[in-house]
Amino acid sequence: MKFLIKKEDIFNGIKLVANVATMKNLQPVLANILLETVDENALRLTATDFDLTISTIVDAKIESEGKITLPAKKLNDIVSRLADKLISFELNSETNSVNIKCENAKFDIIGISASEFPNVLDINLSDENATDIDVKPFSKAIRQASFAAANFESNNLLSGVVCNINEETLEMASTDGNRLARVRKKINNIDNKSSQLIIPSKTTNEFLKMSSLLEDEKIKIYTDKTKLILKSEKSMMISRIMEGQYPKYNQLIPTENPKVATVNKNKLVSALELVSIMVNEKTSIVKFEFSENKLVLRGDTPDSGASEETLDIQYKNEDMTIAFNYKYVIEGLKNMDEDEVKIEMNTNLSPTVFRPNSDEDYISLIMPVQMR
Amino acid sequence: MKFLIKKEDIFNGIKLVANVATMKNLQPVLANILLETVDENALRLTATDFDLTISTIVDAKIESEGKITLPAKKLNDIVSRLADKLISFELNSETNSVNIKCENAKFDIIGISASEFPNVLDINLSDENATDIDVKPFSKAIRQASFAAANFESNNLLSGVVCNINEETLEMASTDGNRLARVRKKINNIDNKSSQLIIPSKTTNEFLKMSSLLEDEKIKIYTDKTKLILKSEKSMMISRIMEGQYPKYNQLIPTENPKVATVNKNKLVSALELVSIMVNEKTSIVKFEFSENKLVLRGDTPDSGASEETLDIQYKNEDMTIAFNYKYVIEGLKNMDEDEVKIEMNTNLSPTVFRPNSDEDYISLIMPVQMR
Repeated sequence: MKFLIKKEDIFNGIKLVANVATMKNLQPVLANILLETVDENALRLTATDFDLTISTIVDAKIESEGKITLPAKKLNDIVSRLADKLISFELNSETNSVNIKCENAKFDIIGISASEFPNVLDINLSDENATDIDVKPFSKAIRQASFAAANFESNNLLSGVVCNINEETLEMASTDGNRLARVRKKINNIDNKSSQLIIPSKTTNEFLKMSSLLEDEKIKIYTDKTKLILKSEKSMMISRIMEGQYPKYNQLIPTENPKVATVNKNKLVSALELVSIMVNEKTSIVKFEFSENKLVLRGDTPDSGASEETLDIQYKNEDMTIAFNYKYVIEGLKNMDEDEVKIEMNTNLSPTVFRPNSDEDYISLIMPVQMR
Repeated sequence: MKFLIKKEDIFNGIKLVANVATMKNLQPVLANILLETVDENALRLTATDFDLTISTIVDAKIESEGKITLPAKKLNDIVSRLADKLISFELNSETNSVNIKCENAKFDIIGISASEFPNVLDINLSDENATDIDVKPFSKAIRQASFAAANFESNNLLSGVVCNINEETLEMASTDGNRLARVRKKINNIDNKSSQLIIPSKTTNEFLKMSSLLEDEKIKIYTDKTKLILKSEKSMMISRIMEGQYPKYNQLIPTENPKVATVNKNKLVSALELVSIMVNEKTSIVKFEFSENKLVLRGDTPDSGASEETLDIQYKNEDMTIAFNYKYVIEGLKNMDEDEVKIEMNTNLSPTVFRPNSDEDYISLIMPVQMR
């Protein structure tokens, strides 16, 4: 194998796939990126941890074909520091080492034979099962719907993001039991079939990183019983789908919360960050005291002291005091793009809804904390 | 105690002293900053770990006098997040808690009585023992002379920076046994007395941070047998001096190294960073191969591969190969302000001198590593 490639092209390709390659795996080859010549002008880069595979094709001038796997971290370190020029790669297939040259710099980097790399790209894609998706709104929906997933081990369903496809809507949600994020989008569902997918949150996180690097405006989505495949013109992501029945989270969401406050989002985030200097680090509790057009936030620690900040808001209902883990509130707010947000409450123990003022499609629901 | 203070004034004051306050100490009060009213328009902030004390006076409108200690980290967190307005501080002396108000924000922060704070500022300064110093060149000399100090425990002399004051020169140096940094400056030593001081490197590090925050162009230096005192108009640093006989490092510095290369500093640093991707992380060894007007740098690892970069340099002596810990080379080079540096060698086991091309005052000496 021998090829010439622009630094920028291989650098962007490595960025796209390298996160998936992990040294934590027992199989050393999974810390490597597979480099394969595709045709005279194209090189494919692939990384996998079995659950998730990302592959991308980059421009290159192939002088002789072949394939090899190289350690992702070392390869990235080398390429990122090389000059912005043509780089030559040449495999010595007897030693599995690749000679890299750029201007006056030379590297010999020892790889692992491509035959040890798992055969993860061997899948059948039939366009019958494909859906076209606009990248930007899809990424936004994933960002809003996925942050509430639990940090549990990866085989727990609550560590995933659930997608429910109904006749006219795509609904995505995540919950860890204390909070919930849900997004609804109208879609053009041609075959009118309902289905549910549970996607590992590692996949949604990697998709968010990947989508910011993609130039494509549209991607295709394919699903079968065990896999989700996202495909742009040059890149592809293949993810395991989680099996099981996701909890019926929509039952948790109150249909009517009679007490409604309207608050400036950025002011609320700043005030929470200020007040949080004086909260118990283990519980992260901030008290919200609502009265007519006024919100007082209070923090409190046994050893260090107390904090208080007052905000002008719109609120006409009866006075009430309710307490939240302020980190959950901030995470929900940071995923809202609008300046004004609504807080919809019932009692100080009922699930409370935070949502953008004019956007009914996205909610962040948070369970209040019982006050002593 | 009650006072009003501009956010900027107290924030800058806290920045100056807060690094010294440490929660690692057994005495909780040493994690606190002492706040004392000085007169109607001035507040003093002081922090200490016994070895090192920093104190600064900031403008404030004092409404009633008094003193209290407050936790440095919490105080800094609060002040840094408050709006850029007047802040009021009011002590409740029964509870030792201070009420802080700024716009709509309020804090109660629990302190420790000022009577528990050690009496570290009680010193006599006589101007007879004072030397005036220009802050900028003094900071530069300390930066250049101090980085080679050993990371040993703080009572080992090699963890300090040595200052030798002779008839007409101030010489500062540090060494950890593998490398050495030395700076010489001409000074106007009025009393012609020779003396040696060994300053803990914690003091020199804190002075470098502090000097970038000072507005003064000149400071005064006072010494006695046990203390070094640096004093600007509003700030003061009191440091322990280390006791003992510092090794005679000047004997290690070769008077003549016959083989001399002249190299572009930034190119050499970049090349070392590139080549270092493929060095053994434990030994950090890079080989330098000098031949006529050429320097080849080589890295090498048993498992990952090898690296090589070639630089155009000025070199007319016989070919030689010598190996260094590349981190020592980079640290020495980064403290040189000039574009061109000289590398002065003898054999590949003799101490090698790196120095700015036209500056005879600063050298970084490095012991080569034996090659296998």
